[in-house]
Amino acid sequence: MTDYGTERLPGLPEAVTICEVGPRDGLQNESTPVPADVKVEFIERLADAGHTVIETTSMVHPRWVPQLADAEEVLRRLDRRPAVRYPVLVPNLRGLQRALDLGVTDIAVFASATESFAKTNLNRTVAESLEMFAPVITQARETGLQVRGYVSMCWGDPWEGAVPAPQVVDVATKLISLGCTELSLGDTIGVATPGRVVALLNALTAASVPIGSIAVHFHDTYGQGLANALAALQHGVTTVDTSAGGLGGCPYANSATGNLATEDILWQLEGLGIRTGLNLTKLVETSSWLAGHLGRESPSSVVRALRKS
Amino acid sequence: MTDYGTERLPGLPEAVTICEVGPRDGLQNESTPVPADVKVEFIERLADAGHTVIETTSMVHPRWVPQLADAEEVLRRLDRRPAVRYPVLVPNLRGLQRALDLGVTDIAVFASATESFAKTNLNRTVAESLEMFAPVITQARETGLQVRGYVSMCWGDPWEGAVPAPQVVDVATKLISLGCTELSLGDTIGVATPGRVVALLNALTAASVPIGSIAVHFHDTYGQGLANALAALQHGVTTVDTSAGGLGGCPYANSATGNLATEDILWQLEGLGIRTGLNLTKLVETSSWLAGHLGRESPSSVVRALRKS
Repeated sequence: MTDYGTERLPGLPEAVTICEVGPRDGLQNESTPVPADVKVEFIERLADAGHTVIETTSMVHPRWVPQLADAEEVLRRLDRRPAVRYPVLVPNLRGLQRALDLGVTDIAVFASATESFAKTNLNRTVAESLEMFAPVITQARETGLQVRGYVSMCWGDPWEGAVPAPQVVDVATKLISLGCTELSLGDTIGVATPGRVVALLNALTAASVPIGSIAVHFHDTYGQGLANALAALQHGVTTVDTSAGGLGGCPYANSATGNLATEDILWQLEGLGIRTGLNLTKLVETSSWLAGHLGRESPSSVVRALRKS
Repeated sequence: MTDYGTERLPGLPEAVTICEVGPRDGLQNESTPVPADVKVEFIERLADAGHTVIETTSMVHPRWVPQLADAEEVLRRLDRRPAVRYPVLVPNLRGLQRALDLGVTDIAVFASATESFAKTNLNRTVAESLEMFAPVITQARETGLQVRGYVSMCWGDPWEGAVPAPQVVDVATKLISLGCTELSLGDTIGVATPGRVVALLNALTAASVPIGSIAVHFHDTYGQGLANALAALQHGVTTVDTSAGGLGGCPYANSATGNLATEDILWQLEGLGIRTGLNLTKLVETSSWLAGHLGRESPSSVVRALRKS
């Protein structure tokens, strides 16, 4: 790969943690389930490329997410490495028990900032979903697990339009009170812009949520992901969720584009001299290999450009 | 279009001028020339959508750019509006005379920061190309024209890799000395990152180039265009070159992706409360209409997402 130089920008962190969400958030949106052996190889390749946080699968009932019905097989077959965290999405106490039985040490719960999405995705009100998560988070923490709390639709919602920051702060602070060790702020339909990103971060820190506990999770539906991530990094965020090759996409957003691609932000971070521990060449190879299995080209600009060069 | 809210970010300008380069920089990269009547309607639609600077065509010899061989026909047929500037690319004195005969009031010259690209694109050294432009710029200014000086390959070059800022400053300050009223810094192969963007801007202002005379021209080959534009706006730039629907692309870059799409930056600028005078709905309609003529979907994320919604 050609070296196009590095130049730091004041106010940005020295290092950023990328939380790779492709195997769960990405593959659960595939219309045809990906075989378990491909998933296992995908996750092993991501670890080989330097990832230290790989969201691996989901304990949601296979009726709702048939794409991840092989969660137990994947977890059993994975050669989990001590230096890598493999968080698993857990919807309820039954899912937590399955995760614990499989030796999982990191879980995530999936909350919504809006009533419309809570109803559509969880068939519950926001308050009911938090009640459902409360014992899960408590028991997980008592067992020594790390618990990530997703907050989806943090800036916009397809039914409600712009989501006011106080509404997100309310859900986020409740998740922290319940014991979440990290929050992931999701722009589930990709409509956020940098000012609104920063305003929400400011509202959260004003409500005593530590900036170090906040991850950002941008979708690239409107091409805004990377600029929003830059604005978040400029305001103290050091964890960004991305997916290999831009896998994924919210089924309620009218677009095929998905998560911000790991390779696209890595190009930026390398140019900014920010450490991630990731190897871009290996990631591009992995996304290209997976694209072959999925039968379509990666939407990542970097993957496309480097494959052609 | 749903409203997803507006939030300003400190340090950004109140208003930004978008220089629309689709009709020239975009359409000159089409393998099949677009008919003159489509070009004329395209430019009229861009003006209807609020554009005030539309790079219209090129006076480069049709042997080199057959896609724009109809430059005179397009200019004659256009109903040029007093509030809109229609810059035209001019390579030499002969081209300047043709432009003047057609009543053009804004021209642009196309220089390179690197010897490799100057040789490939202009078949001259950088110094020789500046010598060629010198009388063009002088005569144009004497006639009262505005002269934009493009500097291509400002951050990276496919043959030379990273381009050092002093090399760009050298060409840029010479263009200013020759009389250019504006510079457009081109990331022709789309490899820049925000720190390198800011470093070049700082180097130029340190060399007494007024920030108000600098436009940025990003390509989205590696998905970096919008984040780089944000960094430039944060450092005082107020003119950004974009193309409707992301038309265009450097023939020497290994990718189909082209200029930063007008619609993609407009989504960001509207969310940031920055005035542009542009109508996003009309632009998306125009890019969709043109995509029909070109026989392929627009690469703009915003155009794709809004067409589906």
